[in-house]
Amino acid sequence: MAKPVDFYFDFSSPYGYLASTQIDALAAKHKREVAWHPFLLGAAFKVTGQKPLVEQPLWGPYHSHDFVRSARMLGVPFNPPPNFPFFALAASRAFYWLGGDERARRLAKAVFHAAFGEARDVTPVSVVAELARVQGIEGLEQGIEQADTKATLRDVTDRAVKDGIFGSPFFIVDGEPFWGHDRLAQVDRWLATGGW
Amino acid sequence: MAKPVDFYFDFSSPYGYLASTQIDALAAKHKREVAWHPFLLGAAFKVTGQKPLVEQPLWGPYHSHDFVRSARMLGVPFNPPPNFPFFALAASRAFYWLGGDERARRLAKAVFHAAFGEARDVTPVSVVAELARVQGIEGLEQGIEQADTKATLRDVTDRAVKDGIFGSPFFIVDGEPFWGHDRLAQVDRWLATGGW
Repeated sequence: MAKPVDFYFDFSSPYGYLASTQIDALAAKHKREVAWHPFLLGAAFKVTGQKPLVEQPLWGPYHSHDFVRSARMLGVPFNPPPNFPFFALAASRAFYWLGGDERARRLAKAVFHAAFGEARDVTPVSVVAELARVQGIEGLEQGIEQADTKATLRDVTDRAVKDGIFGSPFFIVDGEPFWGHDRLAQVDRWLATGGW
Repeated sequence: MAKPVDFYFDFSSPYGYLASTQIDALAAKHKREVAWHPFLLGAAFKVTGQKPLVEQPLWGPYHSHDFVRSARMLGVPFNPPPNFPFFALAASRAFYWLGGDERARRLAKAVFHAAFGEARDVTPVSVVAELARVQGIEGLEQGIEQADTKATLRDVTDRAVKDGIFGSPFFIVDGEPFWGHDRLAQVDRWLATGGW
């Protein structure tokens, strides 16, 4: 069984959102699974000295335009929430509280869609808990307060930055790093050819 | 006659180099010309607060790997010079001294190839002058010292940054901005469809 494609992202990342709508189908074409890994991009920013794109001179207006244009090209709704960029602690913890399994991924997709498809503020625990309840998941409020849940998110984040993962989305394909949703064509080709 | 595709780049930019090997053919597919515009990316960095990719933590190792991988995918040689990243003042001025015409573009390609294909230091005026002489162009040493040549490069650079052009390569297609050689697929699609 070939290794899964690793998909790192921050829930506050528009390009992470766009990639999240594509990566499972892309990998499935090549009979690959995808391992989703939400992490806290702010930890990488501390090392790179970067900030959210929209808070940077010149980059901000360009990317605000590009988010919309890229989403439109993909036929994906794009309505960012008023509090964007935001700190997605509750959603990230919830993912690991659920063990990162299929339920976790379904919740992750619901969070991304609520945030960037429906302009909802997904930072309150109550909002993430409500999205979970729709999927039959109870007890999120308490679950994400568990010490091991918190530790898992911290560990994933620390290890990601240590491994040189500094952006969202970021993919690892058989050891090969690819940064950005605009690298999906290369990811596709790498999976198809085994590399070049 | 449809407007040319504007192609902004810095001669010290590896992704600018990669794009320079693709953009003319891409535009020609859609019966478009390309207007090449070398500029001094450092002027944009002063506004964005950025630095060359390879001088940034985490970004550096990733991009050094990605340059090579992307070049290999395109079948383009990639041997950056020991002094990379460099300040390409002579080559940039030479382009505008030649009036940005077909000769200027041919010299630009020779400069890019010398720098990133053959690892040559293209910062000395003498090297750019030699590349020009191979193409039958004499008098570059004096030409690039002309006040109007210097002013043109300054003006192009200032206007580019004022217009929100902050990276290399950067394309304008019928008023639409695209940043990065990994946006060439979108440029292609925009030209093919007239936009989406």
